[in-house]
Amino acid sequence: MAMPADEAAVDFYFDFASPYAYFAHGALVALTRRHGLRLRYRPVLLWAILKELGLPPPLEHAAKRRYLLHDMERSAAYFGLPFRLPPGFPSSGLAAARLFHALEAQTPPAWSAGAGAFVEAVFRAGFIEGRDITDAAVLAEAVVAGGLTQQQTAAQPEAGKAALRQANADAVQRGVWGSPFWFHGGEGYFGADRLAQFERSLDLARFDRGAG
Amino acid sequence: MAMPADEAAVDFYFDFASPYAYFAHGALVALTRRHGLRLRYRPVLLWAILKELGLPPPLEHAAKRRYLLHDMERSAAYFGLPFRLPPGFPSSGLAAARLFHALEAQTPPAWSAGAGAFVEAVFRAGFIEGRDITDAAVLAEAVVAGGLTQQQTAAQPEAGKAALRQANADAVQRGVWGSPFWFHGGEGYFGADRLAQFERSLDLARFDRGAG
Repeated sequence: MAMPADEAAVDFYFDFASPYAYFAHGALVALTRRHGLRLRYRPVLLWAILKELGLPPPLEHAAKRRYLLHDMERSAAYFGLPFRLPPGFPSSGLAAARLFHALEAQTPPAWSAGAGAFVEAVFRAGFIEGRDITDAAVLAEAVVAGGLTQQQTAAQPEAGKAALRQANADAVQRGVWGSPFWFHGGEGYFGADRLAQFERSLDLARFDRGAG
Repeated sequence: MAMPADEAAVDFYFDFASPYAYFAHGALVALTRRHGLRLRYRPVLLWAILKELGLPPPLEHAAKRRYLLHDMERSAAYFGLPFRLPPGFPSSGLAAARLFHALEAQTPPAWSAGAGAFVEAVFRAGFIEGRDITDAAVLAEAVVAGGLTQQQTAAQPEAGKAALRQANADAVQRGVWGSPFWFHGGEGYFGADRLAQFERSLDLARFDRGAG
């Protein structure tokens, strides 16, 4: 049986500088593929969202910061993912997010296929190779990884400014207050540790539809 | 092979008014039993800890509150636990925590066996039966559930005041910033969603000791 329109997509709100977004990404790609869902990337700037909401950044307080830095290493091992904190962590996802939105606006057909590869390439550069994801050369490599030609990489991050601002506003309006945060069928999930609950809910929905 | 002393116990810091502490408790009891570990109960007052740390209460902000209230229902279903939010949620864990510490100080031998049953009875009253865990009659039932006689229930919550204050101070000193929060072998785990990582780590440690 066909799914309602709003259940055919997963909207994935995340900050490129968020390790937990990296941890969730590969699993979300696999899960959405397995269930025939479209993964819609919505890069945002977490600090701007938290500032607008009046919430403190997760790494601001010493006790939480100490815990989270250790939890990131432990969670990466738990998910079986390579990981190292980049020098100067946390970095800024601003340049990557603006570039993503600029590319999405300028090259829609090629881009919708390559967006996932771009996102994964940025995560790989930042969280596996310890490179600087604010560096234009690093981002240009991610664009190529996304299947766009050198010529197409001419998209200016500045062009994505308005789209990023809109994504942030949408995120706030939909109740996002952390990264990663994704929505499916009106239901929101915060954090890589909600992957198991999301997977269970998709499996149950498939069972309910008799698709076994 | 014998375990180092600090690895023979799990210190479980929690607030009696915390649904996620209730979700974690049964699994922690089962896990610690299976691995021959002692579960040491450390009831605390989360709001007092957060106030001392300068962190906002998790339910204070509207967006987080909306998400968490839904997440609690979903998480209970995920863990297969009965759950309903008590009227007037969040309640206060103060009376239950003071009583726990008073009983622990006054009746150590009987208590160490019954502490878990007391804790589970308070969670059951608050999160399954929708009763008021600040009510002395409700707490008296929990004391009986903990295996103490009516006479022993005469312990006054006030007597646990200093011990509770000490537990809160210990919690802050050890880096607790949420409920539930538990420690094993120097490692801290925050949240019912870290049960899977804790279980994996116990299984791996057993494997490393050659205990299969």
